[in-house]
Amino acid sequence: MARQAGFHMTPEEFRRHGRELIDWLARYEERVESLPVLSRVRPGDVAAALPDLAPEAPEPFETVLRDVEQVILPGITHWQSPNFFAFFPANASGPSILGELLSAGLGVQGMLWVTSPACTELETRVLDWLVGLLGLPDRFHSSSAGAGVIQDSASSAALCALLAGRERAARTTNTTGCDGKLVAYASSEAHSSIEKAVRISGVGSDNLRRIEVDEQKRMRPDALEAALHEDRAAGRVPCFVCATVGTTSSQALDPLEPIGKICAEHGVWLHVDAAMAGSAAICPEFRYIQAGLERADSYCFNPHKWLFTNFDCDCFWVADRHALIDALSILPDYLRNRESDSGAVTDYRDWQVPLGRRFRSLKLWFVIRHYGAEGLRHHIREHIRLAQQFATWVREHECFELAAPVPLNLVCFRHVGGDAVNQALLDRLNASGEMYITQTRLDGRLTLRFSIGQTHTEARHVARAWECIVETAERSTGS
Amino acid sequence: MARQAGFHMTPEEFRRHGRELIDWLARYEERVESLPVLSRVRPGDVAAALPDLAPEAPEPFETVLRDVEQVILPGITHWQSPNFFAFFPANASGPSILGELLSAGLGVQGMLWVTSPACTELETRVLDWLVGLLGLPDRFHSSSAGAGVIQDSASSAALCALLAGRERAARTTNTTGCDGKLVAYASSEAHSSIEKAVRISGVGSDNLRRIEVDEQKRMRPDALEAALHEDRAAGRVPCFVCATVGTTSSQALDPLEPIGKICAEHGVWLHVDAAMAGSAAICPEFRYIQAGLERADSYCFNPHKWLFTNFDCDCFWVADRHALIDALSILPDYLRNRESDSGAVTDYRDWQVPLGRRFRSLKLWFVIRHYGAEGLRHHIREHIRLAQQFATWVREHECFELAAPVPLNLVCFRHVGGDAVNQALLDRLNASGEMYITQTRLDGRLTLRFSIGQTHTEARHVARAWECIVETAERSTGS
Repeated sequence: MARQAGFHMTPEEFRRHGRELIDWLARYEERVESLPVLSRVRPGDVAAALPDLAPEAPEPFETVLRDVEQVILPGITHWQSPNFFAFFPANASGPSILGELLSAGLGVQGMLWVTSPACTELETRVLDWLVGLLGLPDRFHSSSAGAGVIQDSASSAALCALLAGRERAARTTNTTGCDGKLVAYASSEAHSSIEKAVRISGVGSDNLRRIEVDEQKRMRPDALEAALHEDRAAGRVPCFVCATVGTTSSQALDPLEPIGKICAEHGVWLHVDAAMAGSAAICPEFRYIQAGLERADSYCFNPHKWLFTNFDCDCFWVADRHALIDALSILPDYLRNRESDSGAVTDYRDWQVPLGRRFRSLKLWFVIRHYGAEGLRHHIREHIRLAQQFATWVREHECFELAAPVPLNLVCFRHVGGDAVNQALLDRLNASGEMYITQTRLDGRLTLRFSIGQTHTEARHVARAWECIVETAERSTGS
Repeated sequence: MARQAGFHMTPEEFRRHGRELIDWLARYEERVESLPVLSRVRPGDVAAALPDLAPEAPEPFETVLRDVEQVILPGITHWQSPNFFAFFPANASGPSILGELLSAGLGVQGMLWVTSPACTELETRVLDWLVGLLGLPDRFHSSSAGAGVIQDSASSAALCALLAGRERAARTTNTTGCDGKLVAYASSEAHSSIEKAVRISGVGSDNLRRIEVDEQKRMRPDALEAALHEDRAAGRVPCFVCATVGTTSSQALDPLEPIGKICAEHGVWLHVDAAMAGSAAICPEFRYIQAGLERADSYCFNPHKWLFTNFDCDCFWVADRHALIDALSILPDYLRNRESDSGAVTDYRDWQVPLGRRFRSLKLWFVIRHYGAEGLRHHIREHIRLAQQFATWVREHECFELAAPVPLNLVCFRHVGGDAVNQALLDRLNASGEMYITQTRLDGRLTLRFSIGQTHTEARHVARAWECIVETAERSTGS
């Protein structure tokens, strides 16, 4: 039964099936706009269409691709639809998809410099490029004491930053463990991943101070300072502050200047999380969002959200690479090699939680070169322009109101009719298949979030979505 | 300057460039055997060939692909070469690469069931398939209280298992933090990721007991039991034991039966790490390696090592899914949805450290369907046969000796001439470009590791490698 080369796909078969799949994906992009954005399957539908047991014999690729079309596709919520306005964008693009394909094909495991020098050196270089493209502080450039690294997500970046801050503050947490005295700080609007990191790291969520926000949902520096003083006075050990540039709920911008000064005075690690909003800094006119970043110990943003790069690709910089490596490095005999021992190279395994790592910089490199700085600026500006347009429509409509300022690409708004009306509106819109939007709670009230950043979202999609929202509300409320 | 659709790659351009890249990858597979396995660039060479600044204007795809060939390729250590015998395999395959391409193209973010039901349900189903394919205990099947999930790596799986064990043992570690009393256990030969997890989780490496091994490097159950008793007597709280099926250094097999009994008696979480060796269980005759797994609370192995699936893809199962979810779940308002609230669906974000997740089960599904169970068994058997053949050659050669038993696909051996001879031999072999092998220390002596599992490794590659090793040793030692 075994063929010449066993059961492997031959290069010739790979060419043929690869082209078929490339064609399928090109057609997917052409038709995705016509598909219901939010999947309509019910729980268990997809599972029920899949056999209970793995196949004993090989199956032809055509059969698999047929099942992709018939079984998988109906179970997809289309993050790549131009009508996807939920959560945050996860905006893939042609060059990014091809970069990921190359990464898979080279099959490199980049845990150490020696296990593929290009994987390490391209990553450092592309992260340096972004320091320039985004106007980030020089201290994050690899020619300084700092440098950048790609993480899978902002959650993991925050965890690594917390671990570095924890170890810098208490010195022996890696060896003796946490002792219940460490304290971390983030605003009450910070992302849930901060609380998750505080739990994972053994600091404990009781020791996460959720700092009050002002009326615009920005962290109050005076409240942060008071909390730090109180904890110090009680003999506790502040180790980590997370400020957010663009909170998840409403894109609030924590004031980095005063927060940075306070952290410097207290010698506490300052991590800045700009997961979605950070991409806006590619346009000089939006760099005000990161004013004060010069004092941050670490910073991250996600090209896999709003820079045309498919998940996963979080860019994470530290000002002092040794603080991060000290927190995360372990060197067993089976990983030793001449180059690592010499200290002349970077081994990115020591910059992250897992040991293994993909060649993720390829897709980012492909994206930056395909679009060029001007292309990236063009599209980010356009998304922000569309969000501002949408916000104007909300502002001008008597039945709707903005629930928060709209600095960039996220519009938080609601129908004036209250939570029940908004919940019904949300459900009807998502059931329509015409768009997908999600919600949050602001000031205790259900709030709709309209997030603009999908690669192919154009003015017509946003205009159509607004029409649809207004019409649906009118039909529901009878007004 | 902006084109019709802005700067995006059009579907037609994607078709063209996608085909070019597919062809490039097919040619890569055809020629990889002829390339030096270990990259020959020196530190900084790749970086020096890359511009200091990102391009301002878009660049054509052809230019990027040219740089892949001229700048990136020389900086690649070829994990996909059939002459790669270093570390562990990371054996990609055609169907796996195409599965990753599809995942990138669909661009799905599978954090919640609702954000793409197919992403969750296919993953659960494929992990169930593997329960059958590998003969794993029923408790890991999703029809029980347990289920499986894909993690990026065995490091992350171990961390999640430790967090679940920590919380189950001490109840409030997520809220009050660690208090220095928790203790974890693994053999002195366990992977460095266990120590890393113990550090990250705030348990502290001083509280990791490195249990003695026997002469075959297997954890000694009596030593484990003694350590547990001692810690309990001292008022400490044992929370986690990691047993290894196939240690990294020498593929030693910890005895799961007695370890499982001891863990059950003490109510301690037992995690079993079979990162590379686990794939062997696809052949019934090798399932003895996991005898006793019925008592494990969690288990993982890596299809991205030795099951023809490109990195990253670690399969992780728990016997009690609620213990894992309890340790990792946080539910902010902006992630709420009807299906999650109903409890009828799985939200895999609660089964891992990051929030976001790719559609990783696609590549595993493609692989299993392409090869079928019989194809997978065929190739795993062949790799093990080749390793056994290699071990016989070592055993029969007067200048070489085996350094450890060879249960599966890893041969630990050394020249009888001592450490300096082995180091010189290692360096010369790797500099030759003919192969890449790595080392470890066993019983204090430098030991060469010959790991067989790359997708296209055949009898001729292993035979040629052995010839090369013998010839190089003869030339070096003059014997």
